[in-house]
Order: sequence, then structure tokens, then C-alpha cells
Amino acid sequence: MSKFWSPAVHELTPYIPGEQPRERLVKLNTNENPYPPAPGVEKVLSGYSIDHLRLYPDPESLALRHALAKEHGVEVGQVFVGNGSDEVLALAFQAFFRQAAPLSMPAITYSFYPVYCRLYDIAYRTLALDDEWQVPLEAFDVHSGGIVFANPNAPTGHGHGRDAITRLLERVTECVVLIDEAYVDFGGESAIPLVAQYPNLLVTGTFSKSRSLAGVRLGYAIGSRELIEGLERVKNSFNSYPIDSLASAVGIAALEDREHFDACREKVITTRERTRRRLTNLGFEVLPSQANFILVRHPEHDAAQLFVGLRERGILVRHFNTEALRDFLRISIGTDDEMDSLIEALETLVG
Amino acid sequence: MSKFWSPAVHELTPYIPGEQPRERLVKLNTNENPYPPAPGVEKVLSGYSIDHLRLYPDPESLALRHALAKEHGVEVGQVFVGNGSDEVLALAFQAFFRQAAPLSMPAITYSFYPVYCRLYDIAYRTLALDDEWQVPLEAFDVHSGGIVFANPNAPTGHGHGRDAITRLLERVTECVVLIDEAYVDFGGESAIPLVAQYPNLLVTGTFSKSRSLAGVRLGYAIGSRELIEGLERVKNSFNSYPIDSLASAVGIAALEDREHFDACREKVITTRERTRRRLTNLGFEVLPSQANFILVRHPEHDAAQLFVGLRERGILVRHFNTEALRDFLRISIGTDDEMDSLIEALETLVG
Repeated sequence: MSKFWSPAVHELTPYIPGEQPRERLVKLNTNENPYPPAPGVEKVLSGYSIDHLRLYPDPESLALRHALAKEHGVEVGQVFVGNGSDEVLALAFQAFFRQAAPLSMPAITYSFYPVYCRLYDIAYRTLALDDEWQVPLEAFDVHSGGIVFANPNAPTGHGHGRDAITRLLERVTECVVLIDEAYVDFGGESAIPLVAQYPNLLVTGTFSKSRSLAGVRLGYAIGSRELIEGLERVKNSFNSYPIDSLASAVGIAALEDREHFDACREKVITTRERTRRRLTNLGFEVLPSQANFILVRHPEHDAAQLFVGLRERGILVRHFNTEALRDFLRISIGTDDEMDSLIEALETLVG
Repeated sequence: MSKFWSPAVHELTPYIPGEQPRERLVKLNTNENPYPPAPGVEKVLSGYSIDHLRLYPDPESLALRHALAKEHGVEVGQVFVGNGSDEVLALAFQAFFRQAAPLSMPAITYSFYPVYCRLYDIAYRTLALDDEWQVPLEAFDVHSGGIVFANPNAPTGHGHGRDAITRLLERVTECVVLIDEAYVDFGGESAIPLVAQYPNLLVTGTFSKSRSLAGVRLGYAIGSRELIEGLERVKNSFNSYPIDSLASAVGIAALEDREHFDACREKVITTRERTRRRLTNLGFEVLPSQANFILVRHPEHDAAQLFVGLRERGILVRHFNTEALRDFLRISIGTDDEMDSLIEALETLVG
């Protein structure tokens, strides 16, 4: 606390990201992709003319936005890019959710959303998940100042299909519906094809998971031209050049390699289902997942103790110390070898 | 305008950065360095193991902050880093200037400051420059909610020495004094040595100008631990990982090459003084500059027309269409060859 801070800063409760360990661990805690990015990324870096770095990047990031527009079958004016999807989400909260009516979000979802609300002084209400740990879309209030959820949801892994999203959008027409699709490429169904019909739908995505580029910080939003313009107004009042030249070139190279993308996400999906079966055999309850992580609990073992036991064996997973989630561990899907180490350690701990 | 925007978004007037032309021009409009970054940057990129990019970067950017702390003789806890100094400035406005009393800034300074004020709903007052186009530090109100100015100032180029800054800090003790030193390495005197004595002093810097890395987006702030903590609270409520792994590695390589840094800035200073003499000989008034640009006007020629004439000849400079600055052109310092082209064109236009 300091007398020099803006008064509102004293009230902030920052988001706490998963640990980035400095020692060598089997790292299954922040949903990173276990496979490297597309080989074209290496070519971009080794052949990069560094003289270009003395110049500012394109403030509109047109080349990257064109590549994303092509990938998703939309116009370039329907694409917004930012320094990771966390930045895109923050700017979207600022651009759309500072309304008279409170924002609605699931009680269990990406825990950065309430942090943005405190930063921008946005009131919000939460919606309990249903008995199957799913977001009950039909329970969202049409009079909300906005709606936000992750789909597939985090850290549960459940995702709604496009039909369910369509029913929500038919009902909620007067506020922005923000769908965070960070994990959609591991088996979910994207709502992006719906942006043409629903001007209040904004879908965010990231290069951090399915493109194996968490280190490069690239996120995006796709929506109607009027929503993208709102984001641009806020962005251009905050930082003219959020996407650096290297990140843009690397992101474009990743988008160009469809084969690598498909191969990596299929491997993750196969390993996820295999891990799910093995954990079920060890007595764990494993929630069905369309993401690159699984949420698991064991009826006879304390999750916090399992977390510590795994850590002692060099394996890092995520434990959220909240009332709703403290019985669970969230485990990112690594390589088959990494998951073998996990299963072996858990066999000792629960066997 | 859209019914889906937060009401405050309708009131925003975004910052307009200098044009980033797509055709090939002598580009003297956005104060980029005409010389490439340190050769070590190329080694970093060509040897980079792309597998590392699948992992999130260090959210605390410790390696880069250590390198900056060493460079500036401060503790790592006194260093904050961001995605370009524009982001660092925006977060500082949020962290320190949302106060009951209005912020004070010069009437002529970096034009992004009033944009941040609108974004964060900060009231501000402006202070006229004195007869020599200098910021009259003694006229800043001690009861301000904060004070911000660029030193050297933009787009005038005048910088105050450390003694003058000390006198200001002896007088203004109850609010944050934010000094933007984007241009200090071209002949200014940094206030960083004063942060040890004045807990309300925050100094920002950038890799975009003197380190030739505008394309990489790296900025920083140096101040007391309590100010850096305020910035961290806001940053961690906005974006956990603003600095990507490549940018961090590139920035560290640039900091390691003192010889390259000194050689480039000395060349810029020499070219600036040579250009100043030549423009004076052509009848221009050239304000004294400690930056990598000069602000010039001609008693007999309209600046807007000169801007157009230069553009027709393939030379891009900056013209600000404001009442105070419309008689001036701001010219970035390029290579000697580029400045020869400029002088040649101006000889035709004013000769």
C-alpha cells in the first residue's frame, strides 16, 4: 500500500497465474502444448533481417489479421489481435462491459474474468454450474450488461456445441456475448461461423495452446465490424503497437502449417482420452474434456496432498484452493511419456 | 458508434501514431533509429530453440529486469517492464493518476498523455511552455494529482538537467512525478539516479529509440519499490505475461552491447547537429534538441505545404495539425545520406 497509488489500486486482487518453475519438472500445470510450434517458425527466426526491428511494427497488424481472417473465413475488419488473449479479454471488458447492468459469468470459469471486473469497476453476477459441471446457458439473464464464459470451459473442460450457442444468441440480443475459445481446437466446436448472423457475438482465441506459442503472446477476437471497432478504439487509446514484428511473423508461419497443427492437436486428444481411462482405472473421477487438460478428483484422496506428493516426484499440476474446486486437480495433457510419469507417480500415491 | 459499446467508449479520441508507409520512403516521421540493433540480436534469433516458445514466458520477466537493473544501477525490485513504453505509461496513469486532484502536464508534450486521461477518466490541467519552448518546471502546482512530462520533451527536443529535476522533486513531494525519458540517450541527462532519494519519482524508458528496437516493443519504468508494486498490481490485473520470450532475449542482447549503443547514439547526435546547421543556413528556425529529432519552422514557408512537397519527393516527416504546432515540422534524424536527401529536397522547396 502506498499514498502514491490511485485509491482504486488498493482494492485490486491480481490474477495469480500458474507457477513457472525454474527447475526441471514434468510441467502439467498451465495447459501448454507439449509439442513444439510449426517448423516454419524456426525458418522465420533464423532468416529474420534484424534491421527491420529498428522500425515500428504495423500498428494495424494487417498481415497477421489477414492470415487469421483467411483461417477463419471472415473479413479482415472482423479480426482484432492483441498481446495474448488475456490482453484481448481485458480490452473487451473495457470496451463492452462497463454498463449499467451487471455482467454475467459462470461461478466456475477462467478466474481472470472477476479480476478484470475489479480493474474496470464492473459489477458482475455468477451463475452456478449444473450437476454435470456444465454452464447452464439457458439460465443467463437476458438483461445482463454482458455475458462471458469460456467454451470449452476452464477448468472443467466441458464445451457446448454450436446449436446450444445459437439458442443463447437467439435469446440474448441486447448485450455482448463474449465466448473465450482458448481451448476449442482440442475437440470443441467454434462459434466463429455465427458472427455473421449475431452482431453481439465476440469470440476470442489464442496461439498459446493449439499453436504451441504461449511464449510469443498472441491472441485475437473475431466478431462483427462494430464490435471490432469498439476494441480498436480502446486499443488505440492504450497502446498503438501491441503486436511486435517478430510475434506477427511467427504467428503467420504457425497459421500456414495446417498439417502440423492437426497432428499436434490429434496427439493431445488421443493422449487425453488414454490418460482419462488410466486415471479412471486408478479410482479417479475424470470430468469429460474437450480441452488440453482434465479436471480430476479421487473419492479417497485429498487433492492438496496429491498435489504435494506429485510435486515431490517432480510433477507439477494445478490445484485451485477455492471452495468449489479444492477437491480437484487440473492436469494439462503432456506427451505420452510425461503422462506415463504422472500415472506412475499416482499409482504410488493412491495405489 | 454501437449500442454494444461501454458508454465511455463513445467519448474516446484515440492517439494517432505517425504513418507507417507501405511504400519505400526516406522515413523521418516516427523517430526510429536509422541504425540496426546490436549484432547480438541476430545471434539470439538464429540460435533460438523454438521448442521454448511452447512455454509461457516468465510472468515477472526477471532476466530482462536484472539486465535493466544492472544497466541503471538499481535493484531489480525497482524495475518494471512492459510491452513498449506506451503500455508502461498507460499502466502508470492507471496506477497513480486516478486521484481527486487533476494531473498536470505541459500544453505541448507527447500527445498520448491526454488520450490516457480520457481512457481512465483522469482530469488534467496543462501548463504553457515558456518563451523558449521549454517546460517551466517551477510552474507545476504542488497540489496536482500527479505530474507528467517528457524529458527531453517531445516534439520540442528540450531537456532539463538533473539539477532542475531535483528542485522540482524538493518542492513536489505528495504526488507521483512521471518523467518520460524516451529520448534521453541522445544528449539528455537521466533522472534515474534520483529515484533512490525521491519515492514519488518514476522514470520511463524505451528500447525503441536508442536501442533500435521499435519493432520489438519493450519499455520500462524505474522508481521506488512502492511505485513499482503499484504498477505490478495493475499489470497483474490486466495481463500476466506482457513480455514475450523472444522480446526479452532480444532486449537483453541489446543491453549487453554498450559499444554498439554508444556508437549509434553518437552518430545520431553528430548528424543532428550537422543537419541543424544546414537547415539554419536554409533560413529555418531549428529548436535546440537533445533528442533524435528536431522541430523546425521557416518564416516564409507554410509547414503543411513543405510536408506535402517533401512527401512528393519521397521524404516523410511529421506535421502536427494543432494550433501551437502547425507552423512546425518534426524531422527524425536519419543517416547522413537520408539527411542529404532531405536537405536537397528542402533546397528546392525553399531555395
